Amino acid sequence: MAEKNIINGVNVKALFSTIDAIKSEPEIAKFKFRASNKWINGTRCRATIKDFYGALKEDDSRPAVSYDMDEPPVLLGNNEGRNPVEYLLVALSGCLTTSLVAHASARGIEIKGVESRYEGDIDLRGFLGISEEVAVGYQEIRIYFNIDADVSDDQKEEMVKLAQKHSPVYNTVTKSTPVLVNLEKDISKTKSGALNKAA
Amino acid sequence: MAEKNIINGVNVKALFSTIDAIKSEPEIAKFKFRASNKWINGTRCRATIKDFYGALKEDDSRPAVSYDMDEPPVLLGNNEGRNPVEYLLVALSGCLTTSLVAHASARGIEIKGVESRYEGDIDLRGFLGISEEVAVGYQEIRIYFNIDADVSDDQKEEMVKLAQKHSPVYNTVTKSTPVLVNLEKDISKTKSGALNKAA
Repeated sequence: MAEKNIINGVNVKALFSTIDAIKSEPEIAKFKFRASNKWINGTRCRATIKDFYGALKEDDSRPAVSYDMDEPPVLLGNNEGRNPVEYLLVALSGCLTTSLVAHASARGIEIKGVESRYEGDIDLRGFLGISEEVAVGYQEIRIYFNIDADVSDDQKEEMVKLAQKHSPVYNTVTKSTPVLVNLEKDISKTKSGALNKAA
Repeated sequence: MAEKNIINGVNVKALFSTIDAIKSEPEIAKFKFRASNKWINGTRCRATIKDFYGALKEDDSRPAVSYDMDEPPVLLGNNEGRNPVEYLLVALSGCLTTSLVAHASARGIEIKGVESRYEGDIDLRGFLGISEEVAVGYQEIRIYFNIDADVSDDQKEEMVKLAQKHSPVYNTVTKSTPVLVNLEKDISKTKSGALNKAA
């Protein structure tokens, strides 16, 4: 257990209080995260993040933030945003980094810097429907972490393992996560209701 | 096959040319997408997207774009960016939308609008290491598509199925994708080499 309240900018005292609160009331731990998306034209679309549910209540306090996505010209786009598979790497990078820092902080390990790089292979024959033999998604993603901290390499290896074990995005990608896709047939209901709420 | 060259802003003539080119030389289809990440403080970090490899060459022509990530206060952050699991939904939304529009366009189906919303459940007991029974990643992600096009509901259902079949992010998440995480022990090599290249 750490002696300082704040380690690496993480309030570990609040972290341990949260853990205690969840142990006595597990419903606090249940979160729902949301996004909406609107197609613009061609390979271009825009996603928006606004509200979420967690710690027993809705949180609508944040301003909406939008993210433009597009493909480069070689993939028939116009570079009006980075592409969705690149956003997946962004998500993975943020989640592993945050998990690494949070779990190191909980153990009282002070960190000076964490940098990482990501590369994933995609064979477009899957996306294009040319081959059923080829994986449609990333075939493999390789990640390289560089940690600056006054600890041994073994301890750094342990930090990287803790990040993998506890990162929600890493585990969403490496396990088979159920994704249920539905078509909303009643447009009038959608336009006046839940879709606008999320947008 | 479509008669017009551009449908829904997608150059379907170029799309079919690309498919023909890949059929004769499959190496063209092999892409490598990349990101880098730098921890800032606490739950805050910044990812950067720059270069990629595809169609037999490196593409370093795009300017670097950075994405800030942070957690809301209830998750010990300061809202200085949306969080990594939200970015995952952004990625999923962009990929399904682009896949839907591309495959509908290739079939000559004109689309007026596509909107979709996303919600995923995360139980923080996984991230916090409180329970080994709970999934660390998203337990389930639900998606609702609203398609505005002069086609039957059956055809819209078919479009949604085509999107799922061909979307790289959807298939990365729903299949178990190998993610190899490495610790770089030689900092001097990292700092002068590949890490900076990606940053």
